[in-house]
Amino acid sequence: MPCTVRTLAHSPNPGFRADLLRAGILHRTSVEGLYIRSERFERVAQAVDHLVSSAGADENAEALYFPPVIPREVLERSGYVRSLPDLVGIVSTFEGDDAAHAEILYRLDRGSDWGDIFEPSQVALCPAACHLVYPRHTGSLPPGGLRFEVFGHCFRHELSPDPARMQAFRQHEFVYIGDPDMALKHRDMWLERAAHILAGLGLAIEAVLTTDAFFGRLGRLLSERQRAEALKHEIVAQADPGTGAIAVASSNYHLDHFGRAFEIVTAQGAVAHSACVGFATERITLALMAAHGVDSDAWRPEVRELLWPSASGA
Amino acid sequence: MPCTVRTLAHSPNPGFRADLLRAGILHRTSVEGLYIRSERFERVAQAVDHLVSSAGADENAEALYFPPVIPREVLERSGYVRSLPDLVGIVSTFEGDDAAHAEILYRLDRGSDWGDIFEPSQVALCPAACHLVYPRHTGSLPPGGLRFEVFGHCFRHELSPDPARMQAFRQHEFVYIGDPDMALKHRDMWLERAAHILAGLGLAIEAVLTTDAFFGRLGRLLSERQRAEALKHEIVAQADPGTGAIAVASSNYHLDHFGRAFEIVTAQGAVAHSACVGFATERITLALMAAHGVDSDAWRPEVRELLWPSASGA
Repeated sequence: MPCTVRTLAHSPNPGFRADLLRAGILHRTSVEGLYIRSERFERVAQAVDHLVSSAGADENAEALYFPPVIPREVLERSGYVRSLPDLVGIVSTFEGDDAAHAEILYRLDRGSDWGDIFEPSQVALCPAACHLVYPRHTGSLPPGGLRFEVFGHCFRHELSPDPARMQAFRQHEFVYIGDPDMALKHRDMWLERAAHILAGLGLAIEAVLTTDAFFGRLGRLLSERQRAEALKHEIVAQADPGTGAIAVASSNYHLDHFGRAFEIVTAQGAVAHSACVGFATERITLALMAAHGVDSDAWRPEVRELLWPSASGA
Repeated sequence: MPCTVRTLAHSPNPGFRADLLRAGILHRTSVEGLYIRSERFERVAQAVDHLVSSAGADENAEALYFPPVIPREVLERSGYVRSLPDLVGIVSTFEGDDAAHAEILYRLDRGSDWGDIFEPSQVALCPAACHLVYPRHTGSLPPGGLRFEVFGHCFRHELSPDPARMQAFRQHEFVYIGDPDMALKHRDMWLERAAHILAGLGLAIEAVLTTDAFFGRLGRLLSERQRAEALKHEIVAQADPGTGAIAVASSNYHLDHFGRAFEIVTAQGAVAHSACVGFATERITLALMAAHGVDSDAWRPEVRELLWPSASGA
């Protein structure tokens, strides 16, 4: 599949969000980027998940379901907090006594903030679904490496009015850990497969060579290296009917980054390489609604057949 | 259903956790109370969710799917942070510049903690699935009130080696907001229904009048009132094959607590009452494995028939 290199300018269309809210597909909360999902949204999201799982059934990947919170030390070892601190959420908890409790109550009564009474815990929100895979596999891999299908709830600290840029969202990933050539094959195969799945659903997609939005001055260097080595690809689609295109699937070839960080070696004793391809469940659902309308009952039969094969009759 | 009043002593059986880990049903992480769930765990958990949804289909409840994080102000208004601060997790994020980033990197390199560089955000982890229902309904309810089926990811700050006391877990609730008599009917009907569902799955259950573990000296007064007014009931089962029994479903009749907090009034203009009955997806799954063994393929046909009706043949 040809792959363009460009900077994406995603300009959300406020009218689309208004449509989604008016139709009751999503419900707002008092904080930007957090939505309550309706059954109509979730029916599509779950069908997308099933379709992706079916497409990957031949992988014999081990399925892993991750909690929304993970040990904070995983983000230290993975390097995420070094390179993307502005997206990270860590969990702070209350370790105080009755006196500290009285201080919380006093501040609540005055309407003043009480958050600083809480202290950083050992736990953080998961920023990318595959992070919890690697610490499980410190040590030697079996010959040929390992494959995983990962379901994760992710959090990124972004306060956007764009429903395609939620603070809380799901990722459904296929991950390989093992030999470099197999990691690249995994990446390439899954990028083709993702494009096939998404185009099959009637989305106008494009494959893009891109970079992560690494933080600050140091981040620019990381991004340059990532682009030079062609490590991150995205499949973008219009997640609203405006002009913007946004990643609905993405892949990272990590080289030996996680292998080194979590001391994972191949059966041959080399530092393991890894690659993941992730599907953005919420964004794919939004892109389908942008392309075909918010009422999934009215989508054309070929698309419905793919998403709800048993319901389509024959 | 008869309902006992007693203090529960849950003594987890370390052997059961060892069985679950050895069989690959759950995988540990480096923090107590956080587990990676396997496909074999999740197949049961999802079947339980479907069974509960089917049992409630006659409610015509609006289904709502909540994100794992919610606006922090909801916990202020609901009173949760007042009464159960020790269970709350709030999300702290990085708002700094390149200099603050350099400080994070410096501390990471020295192996010292960097959490205090993060600042409390507007967002907290959801402690109980139904909390996000109420702020949506400030104002007047339609006659007869409203019914919801709620799917939520919850967090509670507990560092227990007991797999039945996870930090991250799911709740599947049925919520009513409206008239006091209807709220009580909702509670009583759903407690009976929950007992029927859980006993039907072969769990040895018991209904218990109980209280929340409200914090500190003030908390004891809240608990006494809650018990005196018989507001909280639990259905307990053995979530491990030891002697312990733990809540697998629970109900709260909130009186007008949420109605006042979120300014919800009935069609007749009275402050709304509310009640919820929640199913603890992870604990029910564990209780089933405690009762019938960790291999769900080997469970007796009546139980499998209830959980996987289409797969059972005829």
